Amino acid sequence: MGALSTLFAPGRIAVVGATDREGSVGRAIMENLLDSFAGEVVPVNPSREEVFGRSAIDSVGDADADLAVIVVPPNVAVDVVREAGEAGIRNVVVITAGFGETGSEGATRERELIDVAEACDIDLVGPNSLGIMSTPVGMNATFGPENAQSGRMSFMSQSGAFITAVLDWANAEGIGFKDVVSLGNKAVLDESDFVEEWGDDEETEVIIGYLEGIDDGRRFIETAREVTRETPIVLVKSGRTDAGAQAASSHTGAIAGSDEAYEAGLEQAGVIRAESVQELFDAARVLESQPVPDSDAVAVITNAGGPGVMSTDAVGDSRLSMASFADETLDAFSEALPAEGNIYNPVDVVGDAGNDRFRDALDVALADENVGSALVLACPTAVLDYGRLAEDTVELQATHGKPIAACFMGGDRVTPAAKVLSEAGIPNYFDPARAILGLDALARFRDIAEREYESPTTFDVDRERAREILSAVEDRSDTRLGVEAMGLLDAYGIPTPDGEIVDSPADAREVAARIDGDVVMKIVSPDILHKSDIGGVKVGVAEADVEDAYEDLVSRARNYQPDATIVGVQVQEMVDLDSGVETIVGMNRDPQFGPLLLFGLGGIFVEMLEDTTFRVAPVSGVEADAMTREIDAAPLLRGARGREPVDVDGVTETIQRLSQLVTDFPSILELDINPLVATPDGVEAVDVRLTVDPDRLEGAHR
Amino acid sequence: MGALSTLFAPGRIAVVGATDREGSVGRAIMENLLDSFAGEVVPVNPSREEVFGRSAIDSVGDADADLAVIVVPPNVAVDVVREAGEAGIRNVVVITAGFGETGSEGATRERELIDVAEACDIDLVGPNSLGIMSTPVGMNATFGPENAQSGRMSFMSQSGAFITAVLDWANAEGIGFKDVVSLGNKAVLDESDFVEEWGDDEETEVIIGYLEGIDDGRRFIETAREVTRETPIVLVKSGRTDAGAQAASSHTGAIAGSDEAYEAGLEQAGVIRAESVQELFDAARVLESQPVPDSDAVAVITNAGGPGVMSTDAVGDSRLSMASFADETLDAFSEALPAEGNIYNPVDVVGDAGNDRFRDALDVALADENVGSALVLACPTAVLDYGRLAEDTVELQATHGKPIAACFMGGDRVTPAAKVLSEAGIPNYFDPARAILGLDALARFRDIAEREYESPTTFDVDRERAREILSAVEDRSDTRLGVEAMGLLDAYGIPTPDGEIVDSPADAREVAARIDGDVVMKIVSPDILHKSDIGGVKVGVAEADVEDAYEDLVSRARNYQPDATIVGVQVQEMVDLDSGVETIVGMNRDPQFGPLLLFGLGGIFVEMLEDTTFRVAPVSGVEADAMTREIDAAPLLRGARGREPVDVDGVTETIQRLSQLVTDFPSILELDINPLVATPDGVEAVDVRLTVDPDRLEGAHR
Repeated sequence: MGALSTLFAPGRIAVVGATDREGSVGRAIMENLLDSFAGEVVPVNPSREEVFGRSAIDSVGDADADLAVIVVPPNVAVDVVREAGEAGIRNVVVITAGFGETGSEGATRERELIDVAEACDIDLVGPNSLGIMSTPVGMNATFGPENAQSGRMSFMSQSGAFITAVLDWANAEGIGFKDVVSLGNKAVLDESDFVEEWGDDEETEVIIGYLEGIDDGRRFIETAREVTRETPIVLVKSGRTDAGAQAASSHTGAIAGSDEAYEAGLEQAGVIRAESVQELFDAARVLESQPVPDSDAVAVITNAGGPGVMSTDAVGDSRLSMASFADETLDAFSEALPAEGNIYNPVDVVGDAGNDRFRDALDVALADENVGSALVLACPTAVLDYGRLAEDTVELQATHGKPIAACFMGGDRVTPAAKVLSEAGIPNYFDPARAILGLDALARFRDIAEREYESPTTFDVDRERAREILSAVEDRSDTRLGVEAMGLLDAYGIPTPDGEIVDSPADAREVAARIDGDVVMKIVSPDILHKSDIGGVKVGVAEADVEDAYEDLVSRARNYQPDATIVGVQVQEMVDLDSGVETIVGMNRDPQFGPLLLFGLGGIFVEMLEDTTFRVAPVSGVEADAMTREIDAAPLLRGARGREPVDVDGVTETIQRLSQLVTDFPSILELDINPLVATPDGVEAVDVRLTVDPDRLEGAHR
Repeated sequence: MGALSTLFAPGRIAVVGATDREGSVGRAIMENLLDSFAGEVVPVNPSREEVFGRSAIDSVGDADADLAVIVVPPNVAVDVVREAGEAGIRNVVVITAGFGETGSEGATRERELIDVAEACDIDLVGPNSLGIMSTPVGMNATFGPENAQSGRMSFMSQSGAFITAVLDWANAEGIGFKDVVSLGNKAVLDESDFVEEWGDDEETEVIIGYLEGIDDGRRFIETAREVTRETPIVLVKSGRTDAGAQAASSHTGAIAGSDEAYEAGLEQAGVIRAESVQELFDAARVLESQPVPDSDAVAVITNAGGPGVMSTDAVGDSRLSMASFADETLDAFSEALPAEGNIYNPVDVVGDAGNDRFRDALDVALADENVGSALVLACPTAVLDYGRLAEDTVELQATHGKPIAACFMGGDRVTPAAKVLSEAGIPNYFDPARAILGLDALARFRDIAEREYESPTTFDVDRERAREILSAVEDRSDTRLGVEAMGLLDAYGIPTPDGEIVDSPADAREVAARIDGDVVMKIVSPDILHKSDIGGVKVGVAEADVEDAYEDLVSRARNYQPDATIVGVQVQEMVDLDSGVETIVGMNRDPQFGPLLLFGLGGIFVEMLEDTTFRVAPVSGVEADAMTREIDAAPLLRGARGREPVDVDGVTETIQRLSQLVTDFPSILELDINPLVATPDGVEAVDVRLTVDPDRLEGAHR
């Protein structure tokens, strides 16, 4: 049991606002609690003598309870919570609505509630919550119409209505829960707290949830990583397709919208993200009760060829593969099956197979060490008894200790067999695709549980110099920086071409003289973002032409925007783009997850093909390396089409160094290195753009 | 009714091999037919006096039946069918197995069966079939354990076991069928025949099927296009992920594997392809009974915010969109809903909504002409009666004539309401995603039914010259052609750069002199496929260097492979690749669908990113144009990133001309134009490779 053990297993619960008034929330909670709670229930209501035959007390301060459930009106709720806290009650569930979800008055009230909870060290659920349940102690402290059956999933939801709907459905399906929490407004306790709690809870085998948002992405990632070493987490995070609306301002930002952060963050956290309610429960049901497979190879045992082909497609669509059997397995199948059967996978025991033949085939398949899991796929025939097949399946699952999915096709004749299977933790589906997805979730969780999370590398950097460069925005209305901030990259060890920003033609020539070969010259102005469009970039300028080029660039800028602030002209070493691959490394700060790193190849790959990958920073070397591998165009970095491979390690290190930079400086709101040119000899950041929040500068105005 | 009307509504059925022997197929069929068939049943069995109380006759020739069902052993089955045919029976179902599915003897027997059916003009189902059903006449001429309930879907399956499983399930779900056909080996009647029949059948509202293959792709496309003007077709075509195994030999061929042909062919046919059994029936159920929406805009009416967000995600994942309401609709919602409700989409009528408020909101939404369809999404509450909500939903659906999907969440309390909905053709799901997919299928079918299929353009071409060029392979062991076949493209009006194949340095110089600017020179040899790899291509050769280059190319080829046949050297005009986009137009001949066209951009786009699109030829201008639009990199053709748009019409025309070429010449097994360079000024086919089947050359060896 974890830190919230008393919340879920209190000895004595005070219901503040308890009543027996028809149709009231206070009555519904009293009824639900009195129905099956193992401990004591104390009604708190100064205007009643007793409620449902129990003496009511006037004040929660006198309740001597472990948990207070608050259903009083919002205007007195905060005071009641304070009173409870002052009386030493450390667990409070606030059912009452009318807080942050209802405008500014409610928001103020919620702020007060948080202050009280903090002051009194209260673990508070809600406000605006349906309540909580915990089946081992029979506690239903909700005002919903259904109680949960006992089980080993713990379930949190940001929607109370969804809990009501799920419980009604789950009770019909025979699906049970250990704890259920309606998160409400998450003023104090949030998803990370419950993930942590259930990770420590031996009675919880799977954590599932419906979330509309995650409050503190970094904390969630760290908590979930720890928990998923043993306990799977399956979540629906809704609002997936609203991502666009929250897109940030710069072009890379627009790509790195908020759902990318959730997608990356949940993946980094080891969470299995379900896209629909069906996926959520299909995955959770097998994770609750079945072992994970040792290998991804699936054996399909069927009495019908057509459905066998369908299941092969489903395996092909998943991370799983069709098992190749050992020779002795094939020999055993040859002996057990008639000539028209198929001894290869999917194994066809033929339509005239009785239970013995079906059972023998499944037994043989599960005994093969090449087989990680099995699908039992049966069509109704006159000679096959579904009930016996279900019992055999359950028994062989236990004997071999390998996960099994079931697809006994049919309607009414399946029902009793499905019940036998379900009680043993083997859900039955008509559709092979759903059965295979269950096995896929098990394999997925195995990989998650086996993950080793490395710490991010800490590079030796010049943090002081970076701080100075960022402080350039301090006294400016424009908080964007461009090539004038190349030193920032340099300070963090990211290679940049030789070059300098100068403010006179003579200085430009002097810099060019230092540089081998022709140079690139660019106008530097915070007011001119798209330099190329106004002819503000000159490539391949010979030393003799540098002064003229300087004058020309400045006059173009002046013509374009007479009042533009012109910082100067950058004179930069030419980078050989022909032998290199242009990449983009970017960062966009997400409101929940913080710095979200982007990697992709330059030009059309990011902008048109959206061939990008994201990670929440800070990233380890392993994660940075994975980013360079998982884009579709990854082979281009590694020498596809007869080209020499580029310095991918340099790219990986740049991603890590950028990760360190944006983690060190929360003032950097977004940053693009575009392009980072990678050649066989190394990488060079040719251009940079960033936006800085002056209010978050460390040491600003001091 | 169509050509097969007697097959599905015979007056008199002869069962050849009828018996009452326990456990026999002949008994099962007799029992099934006697159970409910409206017409007469005649047992044919020379060794019985009577079967189930009906006089048995000795020979099918004396049966005077409209339909013969054959269950005799395979060695006599062909004779029996001949006898039936000679007696004028035009409809035969061969249940008997032991034909093409069982080795060479069976294959010979199947060939004989086909000959008999053709000679006697028999519409023959099977062999190796479970049988057929037709509910209007109560005919169950199968040996399966279940009969179908009556309904308006007609169902064909290449797996008999799958029919058995589906019927058991469908009977439990209350899903009915008009006709059911177990296709068996499809020796005579195949999927196209039944699609055509059911297209003509007024009692069939939806055609569904499980197929493992389509015999004649072109016929299927043409038949289905006609049928889907009125009747939707939803199919599971299995073996999707086996595509790779059937990949053809050349690199483009490898990409254009067989499942690409099915994907393209089914799409061109107007078929809705389901990827799983669940998708098949989810789509079919709404298509059976609901109208198609006028627009893709969905209104979601819910009493719960969380599930409302989930449904918004589901809409985002589909081709549908969330409706924007008209001002008067918003006004009406403002009046009908409490302040904490949401009048925008998804419309939240709030958890305390009773039936009246829910109904009013749905009525208002459906009345809005911006709304094409609606989702009724309800969570269980104390004040909402699901039964009444179901009745209101059914009534409002009928009143407004717009499709409605239902998502009444819950378990047992939903069951009676779900029955009311289901009887009105509104399936209910717990998961909003599945409900939305139903509406999506309706919108998809609307688009299919409204399609206008244009005829392919017939260009004026030099077919005779093309025939001559192809005949070059006639006397060769190597059937591949390369640049020496550029004239083939020229004959079909596909632009090629100026150039010629020469066999002496002097001729090479002469050709080069005719051409403006430097030239490209390539060795031409059927034995050297990868010319660049051996230095067999020289780009930018000045006229003065042409003779030396000739000698050099030939000696490189000789060094590489002393016995290579060297046709000569191609001297070709330089094509400016810098201002152009390299594309690939290819064709690979699919065993079922015939010529499958491929289009994509050159290099990494096709090879690494698999950014390709396919169509079965011949294609119309509209289809060719669509190919240039639907690849991810399509914007590159149309002037993305500040480049001038290329001549997309030229690309489209090239696709059409290639389509005509490969349709005219079945001898062309595969062909790649790679690259077809598209510039703002036009297109040019720079290189070509093809493989020709000498046995299919028209006029070969004449």
